[in-house]
Amino acid sequence: MLKVYLSGEIHTDWREQIIDGAKGLDVEFSAPVTDHDASDDCGVAILGTEADKFWHDHKGAKLNAIRTRKGIEDADVVVVRFGDKYKQWNAAFDAGYAAALGKSLIVLHGPDHQHALKEVDAAALAVAEEPAQVVQILRYVLTGELP
Amino acid sequence: MLKVYLSGEIHTDWREQIIDGAKGLDVEFSAPVTDHDASDDCGVAILGTEADKFWHDHKGAKLNAIRTRKGIEDADVVVVRFGDKYKQWNAAFDAGYAAALGKSLIVLHGPDHQHALKEVDAAALAVAEEPAQVVQILRYVLTGELP
Amino acid sequence: MLKVYLSGEIHTDWREQIIDGAKGLDVEFSAPVTDHDASDDCGVAILGTEADKFWHDHKGAKLNAIRTRKGIEDADVVVVRFGDKYKQWNAAFDAGYAAALGKSLIVLHGPDHQHALKEVDAAALAVAEEPAQVVQILRYVLTGELP
Amino acid sequence: MLKVYLSGEIHTDWREQIIDGAKGLDVEFSAPVTDHDASDDCGVAILGTEADKFWHDHKGAKLNAIRTRKGIEDADVVVVRFGDKYKQWNAAFDAGYAAALGKSLIVLHGPDHQHALKEVDAAALAVAEEPAQVVQILRYVLTGELP
Amino acid sequence: MLKVYLSGEIHTDWREQIIDGAKGLDVEFSAPVTDHDASDDCGVAILGTEADKFWHDHKGAKLNAIRTRKGIEDADVVVVRFGDKYKQWNAAFDAGYAAALGKSLIVLHGPDHQHALKEVDAAALAVAEEPAQVVQILRYVLTGELP
Amino acid sequence: MLKVYLSGEIHTDWREQIIDGAKGLDVEFSAPVTDHDASDDCGVAILGTEADKFWHDHKGAKLNAIRTRKGIEDADVVVVRFGDKYKQWNAAFDAGYAAALGKSLIVLHGPDHQHALKEVDAAALAVAEEPAQVVQILRYVLTGELP
Amino acid sequence: MLKVYLSGEIHTDWREQIIDGAKGLDVEFSAPVTDHDASDDCGVAILGTEADKFWHDHKGAKLNAIRTRKGIEDADVVVVRFGDKYKQWNAAFDAGYAAALGKSLIVLHGPDHQHALKEVDAAALAVAEEPAQVVQILRYVLTGELP
Amino acid sequence: MLKVYLSGEIHTDWREQIIDGAKGLDVEFSAPVTDHDASDDCGVAILGTEADKFWHDHKGAKLNAIRTRKGIEDADVVVVRFGDKYKQWNAAFDAGYAAALGKSLIVLHGPDHQHALKEVDAAALAVAEEPAQVVQILRYVLTGELP
Repeated sequence: MLKVYLSGEIHTDWREQIIDGAKGLDVEFSAPVTDHDASDDCGVAILGTEADKFWHDHKGAKLNAIRTRKGIEDADVVVVRFGDKYKQWNAAFDAGYAAALGKSLIVLHGPDHQHALKEVDAAALAVAEEPAQVVQILRYVLTGELP
Repeated sequence: MLKVYLSGEIHTDWREQIIDGAKGLDVEFSAPVTDHDASDDCGVAILGTEADKFWHDHKGAKLNAIRTRKGIEDADVVVVRFGDKYKQWNAAFDAGYAAALGKSLIVLHGPDHQHALKEVDAAALAVAEEPAQVVQILRYVLTGELP
Repeated sequence: MLKVYLSGEIHTDWREQIIDGAKGLDVEFSAPVTDHDASDDCGVAILGTEADKFWHDHKGAKLNAIRTRKGIEDADVVVVRFGDKYKQWNAAFDAGYAAALGKSLIVLHGPDHQHALKEVDAAALAVAEEPAQVVQILRYVLTGELP
Repeated sequence: MLKVYLSGEIHTDWREQIIDGAKGLDVEFSAPVTDHDASDDCGVAILGTEADKFWHDHKGAKLNAIRTRKGIEDADVVVVRFGDKYKQWNAAFDAGYAAALGKSLIVLHGPDHQHALKEVDAAALAVAEEPAQVVQILRYVLTGELP
Repeated sequence: MLKVYLSGEIHTDWREQIIDGAKGLDVEFSAPVTDHDASDDCGVAILGTEADKFWHDHKGAKLNAIRTRKGIEDADVVVVRFGDKYKQWNAAFDAGYAAALGKSLIVLHGPDHQHALKEVDAAALAVAEEPAQVVQILRYVLTGELP
Repeated sequence: MLKVYLSGEIHTDWREQIIDGAKGLDVEFSAPVTDHDASDDCGVAILGTEADKFWHDHKGAKLNAIRTRKGIEDADVVVVRFGDKYKQWNAAFDAGYAAALGKSLIVLHGPDHQHALKEVDAAALAVAEEPAQVVQILRYVLTGELP
Repeated sequence: MLKVYLSGEIHTDWREQIIDGAKGLDVEFSAPVTDHDASDDCGVAILGTEADKFWHDHKGAKLNAIRTRKGIEDADVVVVRFGDKYKQWNAAFDAGYAAALGKSLIVLHGPDHQHALKEVDAAALAVAEEPAQVVQILRYVLTGELP
Repeated sequence: MLKVYLSGEIHTDWREQIIDGAKGLDVEFSAPVTDHDASDDCGVAILGTEADKFWHDHKGAKLNAIRTRKGIEDADVVVVRFGDKYKQWNAAFDAGYAAALGKSLIVLHGPDHQHALKEVDAAALAVAEEPAQVVQILRYVLTGELP
């Protein structure tokens, strides 16, 4: 069984595409909370409001870290998706975290980000452009079948 | 003696400010190659040209990784600076790498990046805005003196 | 599945509140022996009496360590509760032990202990005042649902 | 050469007694910042004031952690002193942190704290009452000489 | 569930006593091959005879190491029994191996071996004389019940 | 249960012999993709063609590494088979990788390779010539039965 | 300072070329014993003759392992050279050993070995053909200077 | 530089023979306290008398562990000498401890102990009978010179 953590961009359905495509494979997926508002506000919603935006965010980011650290540490494979928008520094942070732990890293991004992601890609075992390719990788790794 | 790795933005003199400010302290600094062109082209310059930009970048990023991995792994403290421009995913990658290794992380960025860097900041032991603050931290950590 | 170790204060029903509140969540809880007398006397009850109180306590503390070390080492999340009374140095010891192993740490204490626990809180991913907040954190981490 | 970290109580001169007593031995000592006010206020003094006492303390505790983590991680031996007053949870936290890293732990406290410190003592290789005994231990460990 | 490895003396039924006594507890036991002849000759029986007794023993000891290393590395608790006869250096070797891996160590021996085993006992969390005490420890650790 | 990774030569049926022979034993086997063409071409089949043979191979070798790294890292025992033909540097690489992780290593090769494999054999707990011997080792390790 | 271990082929002067070329750089080199006869016979020369060639080689390979393991474990960078002749399985073993420890790996070989070494190359941060390129890499990594 | 820890028998001058023989080599030796009485009584001499012999020995064994653990953990090579007399379980314990940490182990004993030490020898990289052989090994490992 392969444990796969799906990190990064939360505004498209790439996770669903991978999970759907991998139906029937012996894979267990995990991921961060992908509800943007919940993810932003979880800290203050549970632990009390903060006047200062920095601490508002800080409390939330730390709660989310409980989930993301476990997801990455338990994973065999960490897939990190970079989308078209936003800074996505948390995605790159996850990639670095996974690399330092020796996880198999798959990076998923379009060709326009190629130069900016060269250090991340250099730490990866695969660089894909489409979710379907990630599914093909998982199928090959588990069964030896090629598309 | 404190070993400090200075990661991230290479377009301003923040490293020099910190190194100058820390004169007299028992600190050993290291950093990536900060010559942008050398850093981009080192792979092909030494190991042969590539027709494909991806592999051009790949070879370079891997050579740079020899230096950056050693810098981070040997460090007690990793300072990561996010500037105003560019994607700077390698900076966030270094921060994640350092965090996973249990290094003491200091993040240095302006207030406008606060929300986008909340996951990185949440892993840090200090979030500063100015290089002078990093110097003050190093002085305090080593000597107990406050500004 | 999330493995959660509940360390610290043994004189109120905070563990039961958390375990009850987390019913239905995919959590496995563990905890020290919370029977105060058994915990104090286990060493001599099993391995023979000691004339000297130090060794009486020593034998017991070491037997208890078999359980607490396993509980902390197996856990994803370590919750440490500081109550109103007693020195509770074993709670702080467990927090330090968990922090050094990179466990996600949640500290649970009232506002009057805030200053004295600042070093422990600084190592935590969440600082809560009520057991119900811990339940909310576990629910959020596992399901993404907010209260 | 033996690296020794001196953790805990900061209101008596026990560190000086040990350092003086160990003159001539091949020992390198380290310790936290023992200036109480500096230690409390370092975070806001360097990184900016906080309205909320919790965050005031939090910023300071994290800066201090840069020093204490390095001190403990670099040490061969960690000595933790519990005094007569205060909660001293940071001392017990350091003891747990050191124990989890497999450091040789020496605990230093008076007989009245014996029962409350039994879990900490159980993780130690020596439990002493006087700084002079710590010096004797260091001398014996390094030279084989007994008092 | 507690994984317990039973190392050491193979000429009495102490393992059976512990396993029988622990019936109903959530323990999984493992142990070396306790058939003395099989253990001595396994190497040459499978991999071919050796003229030299040293290599005869060497091949066997290495095959046995496949089992003992796995047993110890997978264990939460390692019980090491020293009997009345023979050198039993492999038992002490296993104790050292377990200690270095941070396993909870229980040593089982009669009072006559007390002085000779002081270094081994010093690394243990319990020193027992009878198999029944080991059962009581396992029961206490798992259920909190005292005899 | 014993997890066994079967590394190396892919042109004879040695894996099948071992897996068949071990029927009824509590062993879980894993192995690399042994379809030579799929293994060579997986990278470009999934991630796009490469003009340069080096990168063609590189992409494939990295995808295969996702499977082989997991296989070795999860294994208790790594069996490495060297056949009569080819360089088989990946087999020796796997052996070194397994040795560095402290895995129990069994090497399987004919007598003509004895001198060339002396460094690999020196890191192994068993050196066998026939698959049937590996089965006998697994049976002995798990049940204590000799052939 | 960069510690570099030079593993592999011992029949040409590639080590001397690298060491000479790196004069003036802050590099400390180490390497296996490269005297072929001494390396083959060290075991029996020191520890006594063996009738069986397997054990003759075994004793020698283990003595050499004392040196090679230390060399690799202490190194920041491991360079592995594959020459034109011989099986060179020890070189590939060293590469796997270094990769598992997370060392920066540089592989040095001619183009004819490209396909056979693809798994080794895939674990490397650089693949070079000439010793001079290794020198250029070391110079760049240490000083940022390109050829 | 090679760090070598000399563990085990303390009644003959084997340590002096090795240290003398290794003059001129880049070796740093360490060893336990070899004064038998000091080693037995150090605990009570420094930390106070004990009525019970078990605790007398326990306190001493733990103080000695501060030195022996550091010696083994810092070492590249651990030499363990088994003499003709006594149980010497601490020697076998040290060997197991060193083996679990991946240290290069050299065992030194006469032929009469061969069978009883087979598990210890099986974990070693060299088994010698005379101190002079250990010197020859150290010289060969450091310089490549054979006797």
